[in-house]
Amino acid sequence: MDPIVTTVRTDLALEAREMLTKRVREDIPGVLIETSEDEDAVITRVTITTPEAERMMGKMQGKYITIESPGLRYKNTPLQQKIMNFLAKELVSMTKLPRNATVLIVGLGNWNVTPDALGPRAAHKIVVTRHLQDMLSPELKDGVRSVCAISPGVLGITGMETGEIIQGIVSKIKPGLVIAIDALAAASSQRVITTVQLASTGIHPGSGVGNKRFGLTQASLGVPVVAIGVPTVVHATTIAMDTINTLQEHAAFGRYFKSMANLSDQDRHTIVRQVLPEMLGDLMVTPKEVDRLIEDIAAVVAGGINQAMHPNIDYENIHMYLH
Amino acid sequence: MDPIVTTVRTDLALEAREMLTKRVREDIPGVLIETSEDEDAVITRVTITTPEAERMMGKMQGKYITIESPGLRYKNTPLQQKIMNFLAKELVSMTKLPRNATVLIVGLGNWNVTPDALGPRAAHKIVVTRHLQDMLSPELKDGVRSVCAISPGVLGITGMETGEIIQGIVSKIKPGLVIAIDALAAASSQRVITTVQLASTGIHPGSGVGNKRFGLTQASLGVPVVAIGVPTVVHATTIAMDTINTLQEHAAFGRYFKSMANLSDQDRHTIVRQVLPEMLGDLMVTPKEVDRLIEDIAAVVAGGINQAMHPNIDYENIHMYLH
Amino acid sequence: MDPIVTTVRTDLALEAREMLTKRVREDIPGVLIETSEDEDAVITRVTITTPEAERMMGKMQGKYITIESPGLRYKNTPLQQKIMNFLAKELVSMTKLPRNATVLIVGLGNWNVTPDALGPRAAHKIVVTRHLQDMLSPELKDGVRSVCAISPGVLGITGMETGEIIQGIVSKIKPGLVIAIDALAAASSQRVITTVQLASTGIHPGSGVGNKRFGLTQASLGVPVVAIGVPTVVHATTIAMDTINTLQEHAAFGRYFKSMANLSDQDRHTIVRQVLPEMLGDLMVTPKEVDRLIEDIAAVVAGGINQAMHPNIDYENIHMYLH
Amino acid sequence: MDPIVTTVRTDLALEAREMLTKRVREDIPGVLIETSEDEDAVITRVTITTPEAERMMGKMQGKYITIESPGLRYKNTPLQQKIMNFLAKELVSMTKLPRNATVLIVGLGNWNVTPDALGPRAAHKIVVTRHLQDMLSPELKDGVRSVCAISPGVLGITGMETGEIIQGIVSKIKPGLVIAIDALAAASSQRVITTVQLASTGIHPGSGVGNKRFGLTQASLGVPVVAIGVPTVVHATTIAMDTINTLQEHAAFGRYFKSMANLSDQDRHTIVRQVLPEMLGDLMVTPKEVDRLIEDIAAVVAGGINQAMHPNIDYENIHMYLH
Repeated sequence: MDPIVTTVRTDLALEAREMLTKRVREDIPGVLIETSEDEDAVITRVTITTPEAERMMGKMQGKYITIESPGLRYKNTPLQQKIMNFLAKELVSMTKLPRNATVLIVGLGNWNVTPDALGPRAAHKIVVTRHLQDMLSPELKDGVRSVCAISPGVLGITGMETGEIIQGIVSKIKPGLVIAIDALAAASSQRVITTVQLASTGIHPGSGVGNKRFGLTQASLGVPVVAIGVPTVVHATTIAMDTINTLQEHAAFGRYFKSMANLSDQDRHTIVRQVLPEMLGDLMVTPKEVDRLIEDIAAVVAGGINQAMHPNIDYENIHMYLH
Repeated sequence: MDPIVTTVRTDLALEAREMLTKRVREDIPGVLIETSEDEDAVITRVTITTPEAERMMGKMQGKYITIESPGLRYKNTPLQQKIMNFLAKELVSMTKLPRNATVLIVGLGNWNVTPDALGPRAAHKIVVTRHLQDMLSPELKDGVRSVCAISPGVLGITGMETGEIIQGIVSKIKPGLVIAIDALAAASSQRVITTVQLASTGIHPGSGVGNKRFGLTQASLGVPVVAIGVPTVVHATTIAMDTINTLQEHAAFGRYFKSMANLSDQDRHTIVRQVLPEMLGDLMVTPKEVDRLIEDIAAVVAGGINQAMHPNIDYENIHMYLH
Repeated sequence: MDPIVTTVRTDLALEAREMLTKRVREDIPGVLIETSEDEDAVITRVTITTPEAERMMGKMQGKYITIESPGLRYKNTPLQQKIMNFLAKELVSMTKLPRNATVLIVGLGNWNVTPDALGPRAAHKIVVTRHLQDMLSPELKDGVRSVCAISPGVLGITGMETGEIIQGIVSKIKPGLVIAIDALAAASSQRVITTVQLASTGIHPGSGVGNKRFGLTQASLGVPVVAIGVPTVVHATTIAMDTINTLQEHAAFGRYFKSMANLSDQDRHTIVRQVLPEMLGDLMVTPKEVDRLIEDIAAVVAGGINQAMHPNIDYENIHMYLH
Repeated sequence: MDPIVTTVRTDLALEAREMLTKRVREDIPGVLIETSEDEDAVITRVTITTPEAERMMGKMQGKYITIESPGLRYKNTPLQQKIMNFLAKELVSMTKLPRNATVLIVGLGNWNVTPDALGPRAAHKIVVTRHLQDMLSPELKDGVRSVCAISPGVLGITGMETGEIIQGIVSKIKPGLVIAIDALAAASSQRVITTVQLASTGIHPGSGVGNKRFGLTQASLGVPVVAIGVPTVVHATTIAMDTINTLQEHAAFGRYFKSMANLSDQDRHTIVRQVLPEMLGDLMVTPKEVDRLIEDIAAVVAGGINQAMHPNIDYENIHMYLH
């Protein structure tokens, strides 16, 4: 069976599994699921444990945690604070770091393309402390990890692969962990801005809004890499595909269709190419309020990282550490 | 017959006519068409002359001129210059103004939502001269019209209808013409950024990316109003509709459908609402490079207006007049 | 005696009085002073009650309240909150408004010149409600005044005097009060960003960073106008003047000067013109961090106005009303 | 004798020499000067050839070229083009590079502080080509050098010294030359925005608007480093110093001063500290129109570099290569 990614593109392991389950209609061997939820959020932990599951899911082996909270679309300070706490807790659980290891935060994406700007905007809100380590009092130092951050820009702006730039910096700074923040593409418009994904696998080629050509992984950098991503777009092709699926799946429209006749995958692609001819891949579907939404969710992502990195900083005063 | 706008939304009279022709499959009485083209651009002039045509087209009686040039998507200075010239010429032909009348340029839309920011960005590039009239030498004054400009912001930002603000300013400034610049929604993704529309009818409620609640028309302002618009988004619903239509129209997919069975308009809407449930209207489909594209097309629109207003300013030095 | 403003320029009544007192070395008739302070802030209320005092101070008759708090330079949420409360209280005390009167907030200044952008940035953070009045429940409506806001831009951008634009809008909207927010010039660098001034006199020509040519006053608009300003620049000439004064005033440098010899006002100007020849008035002295500082102080000003306008909105949730 | 930099700070070798000459009133051994000029610009080439000259000038041994053109303050396309050409020519003459060597452009400074944003803004306008080398046709390749660019951000934003980041990237990318673009401080307000300096010495600690703590030099990076800088600020202290000097130097004011009595350097500093007490170093003096001016001069700097790097690209179409 083909990996599901050939039909609808998603960067969320959660959605890859949903789509696969829909087709396979049974549990997928090698994929473990664990869920917890409260009234505001659902946390799902997907672990891909076998090469076979990796191939079927189209996602690398490793642990993927998603925090879903539809309320993130609305300016709601207490909810944002709560999701920051969840993110901080999951991030700490995913990374086992020596107390004095430095962490390098990498904001991926293009700051000139609003829905791709999540990484740079979140990186900008990180409390960087690596340069202050010698100035901190011993009490404070205990809860303030050495953190540094960079947003290298994309290939078209720098002429360099992000992977090359980060390799160079990692070889010089020697962090114990890299956290890469990136804007993602979802298969469902409801997940846009409302979902945060942590992945123990780092960033792999082809993912993200800007379709990375390179990877940022433990293999390429020599240190563990955690990827934190938020879907900010749905590909236009997804909407076309969703329309076809809706058409077929709903009995109400049965009178229009010959019984049993399912469109082949090839026919689906033919239709989509007809609807979105030249633009394929160039159009993005994004919320109207994307500028404000990106700013808000970048604050949530940065806030969660800040809490995980610097547990002893009083959050009321965390802004004192900000540039 | 229902106006076509109930199915797919477009602010372009050109597209409204295309869609209507497709359904009616004959000439529409009361709609005059005139076309001219060269290797870079097609200019179409649609005139709606009867109330019946107005109802069928879903567009007010008046003259609509579109300049289409696919090359506008690419940074191409000579082509941009050429389209500016076309726009200036059509704008002059549409407006018969006494030499010393003041023109007020209104940049509509929300500067915080990139695809809706065309109006404010173009208005900002207008060569305003009303405050300099007493300082200009007689030779220069001859080719430099009195022009002023404002971008009032949208209802959610000001708490005032744009119509109220502009009525107040018009009553004070007493211009001879208002030119309103606005971002539009197209039915076809190929027209996004590549088409400029001039309308002698002004702005009518429900149009534009931000779905205006008010109108800016000769009736409401007491002076002629020309609207200049560029499609910057396609509504997500359009993609869903396009998919359904493609599916039905292509004989190749006939094997899936029962013969003769066309989806009713109501069924189409049911499907679209299923595909884009809560988001309906909140999602926009826009090119990835929208930030750069808006900046470029705003320069073309402002350049065309500047040329029409100030025929004697040497274009090389037009920047000398800019703030 | 010449008004002090011919030597060092300030928009603060407080500083005008300080400078005048220094020269006159006695109480100024027609100028009433009242001060209150706590550990974080000093509030000074200057009332100019006679035409003679108006002439000597170079400030129109009326009430000027300044809230000074050096801590405003540092990101300090509790202090910012406290100053917002002070501002709200002073603003309420200065304006006696019928409960259902609409208030129009005007953000003056040029958004393209960071230190002049205070007005537009603060206006953008105002909770506008005029368009929501019909939708509010009766309980809520009681504490939510009808507020609208606009940032018209400066003469070089619009070709229209701000006074003309606001007159037009006021004649249409008929507010009961106009609040104009503006960036000011101070005589002392210590007051930059740390001082908020309320003036019952509105805006007078020649004031502000951009040196207004027009006024926004009860006389010109037909409704009361309160001006709220924050110094964001010191004119470069001020630094030159301060240097000369310091040189003369300090006995320690007496050995360099002939006894008794004070520089004449004319000589001072000759020196300043020598030091700052062509640039006079074009250079501004501003803190390095002006971008961040303007953003922070704009939030304080807008927050104070929001509290004064909408006493029943819970501040925790005030962001819910923001666009 | 103390280096002049203890009194008035300048990053321009040209000004350091002017000030030194004024004090020493004779030629400085080890400093070579060469000048050429036309009606629009003066080009001065200062070479510091001895350790003694380095100490007296407060500038490292090497070659410093300044292009001065007061017209750069005004939007003037032909003049900007001319200065680009001059800059390109001087840059080529300063660097002898193998044809296939890669060049890394580094935009220094803080993009959040407008006068310090020259480096990032210019770097953004560089035609990067390193990632396109394999795609270029042989004819084109000949005049299109492999160029890449990065704006790393400042210490307070990244937690890393810019020197560390660039060392890491250089070790990975292995360029044949680094060109570092930086905003400078001038001693004279007339040089702000009107002067471009090229220095064969790279960047040394303490220079620039943001007062670098690190160096970017051949010694630290292992490859030649050319620094290109434009003064965008004058330090507030400079204006105070200028005032004192003007006061003393002009015979017209002699009647106020005791004959022969010159202020000691220490007294000067006491005065300046009195005038600019807490702010010392935090205030900057900058033109009101700095946002527009930085944008324009960044285009000139980037244009000059682009021409030097890619002599075969037709300037009309250079934008085609831009992201």
